Amino acid sequence: MSIIRQDLATKDWTIFSTERAKRPFDYKKEEKKQVKKEYLKDCPFCRGNEHMTPKEIYSIRQGNDWKVRVIPNKFPALQAKKIIKATTERHIKEPYLYMDGIGSHEVIIESPKHNDNLPIMKIEQVDRVIQAYRQRFINLSKSDDYQLIIIFRNNGKIAGSSLEHPHSQIVATPFVPSYVRTKLYEAQRYFDDFGTCVYCDMIKYELKNRERLIYENDNFIAFAPFASIVPYNIIIIPKNICHVSLNCLK
Amino acid sequence: MSIIRQDLATKDWTIFSTERAKRPFDYKKEEKKQVKKEYLKDCPFCRGNEHMTPKEIYSIRQGNDWKVRVIPNKFPALQAKKIIKATTERHIKEPYLYMDGIGSHEVIIESPKHNDNLPIMKIEQVDRVIQAYRQRFINLSKSDDYQLIIIFRNNGKIAGSSLEHPHSQIVATPFVPSYVRTKLYEAQRYFDDFGTCVYCDMIKYELKNRERLIYENDNFIAFAPFASIVPYNIIIIPKNICHVSLNCLK
Repeated sequence: MSIIRQDLATKDWTIFSTERAKRPFDYKKEEKKQVKKEYLKDCPFCRGNEHMTPKEIYSIRQGNDWKVRVIPNKFPALQAKKIIKATTERHIKEPYLYMDGIGSHEVIIESPKHNDNLPIMKIEQVDRVIQAYRQRFINLSKSDDYQLIIIFRNNGKIAGSSLEHPHSQIVATPFVPSYVRTKLYEAQRYFDDFGTCVYCDMIKYELKNRERLIYENDNFIAFAPFASIVPYNIIIIPKNICHVSLNCLK
Repeated sequence: MSIIRQDLATKDWTIFSTERAKRPFDYKKEEKKQVKKEYLKDCPFCRGNEHMTPKEIYSIRQGNDWKVRVIPNKFPALQAKKIIKATTERHIKEPYLYMDGIGSHEVIIESPKHNDNLPIMKIEQVDRVIQAYRQRFINLSKSDDYQLIIIFRNNGKIAGSSLEHPHSQIVATPFVPSYVRTKLYEAQRYFDDFGTCVYCDMIKYELKNRERLIYENDNFIAFAPFASIVPYNIIIIPKNICHVSLNCLK
């Protein structure tokens, strides 16, 4: 029998069905095993090929070598107001609304090596990647044009990645997508109902229950959400996250 | 320059970026061209292999032959209340909510032939498929246990289909997903703001403007939505859809 669970943060329901995993597949698996090289001459993200990318915005260096590079996405979904001479104004076309595609779309090249990847990286290099995330986040958040900054990482073709060299992306948008608005709205509604922060309550429960707890240190916990929407869904969340309730502020 | 458009029905924003289409892919395309056979001895949906599926719920027949068959999904995401002895009651597990996985999950086998498919089917056969959709929809909607009935069709492996033989699925759920609630809520809010039905206004505009109109007959129109969320996104909608406003009822 399957179980349907509600995600507290969005009020959305997810079906958990172990039966579904047993269905047959008549497509053959296509697997390609190949040894990846450290340098590819046609990869724009490899060390030595810096001339193939737009001018870098930010980098972390050691002597003459870069360790992490941040560059504008060459094929951006969104571009800065000054580049495209645009505004954040909403336009009306009879019943519809639209706005100019302002924003920011950057690529964080996580390593000079083509065959590197987060799970096999040295801890210092992972630290540099996080530092780059943080610096670019702080910098982009200074602009009044952006309402949301999202850092994401597609690993592999199926996830939507078009280049193999390990990289993340950072996008700043002039609007807030409704799934983010919904989370804020539901957190406020939860506070109105129970007088506590929904995320604090989740953290408290997961730390007590420990059934879905993956990792814990002084500042963060990682857990599999009660109502995961995909296999291997993980929430990594600071222990002191609360900005909803004055009671929760330390 | 890209454009960001708002979907009137959900208030969600979509980025339109022609630039993105130009980015390079370094994965090789893997294409398999093969001639498909009319009958496969190990396909449970092929004519002659009826013993490989659960007992049929509904069928459209011509003489001794079935043309369309509806069967319970052998690997269901949801099952009827009486089968799993469950209720639609919500359960509380400290901060979280969940409910039993009741519902219905059926497969519509669209043709006895393995190598058939909607775009190449005879019009009479397409008509039979739609008839089956309609009959099962009516039947499922009689149950008080179900809040929503969804008919969907995954064509091919990338779309999530696990069996090649042409088929659709019908799922009845005991809850309304938030993306459906959002559409209803936004339609009501639009009515509150403008005194008209958001879908009627869209249809009116698309018929006048004709830029995104794909097809029109006496009862339906098909158009590319102003704020498509995927390439080739099409809305097929009855011309007289309105249930929001008394003014719109004929």
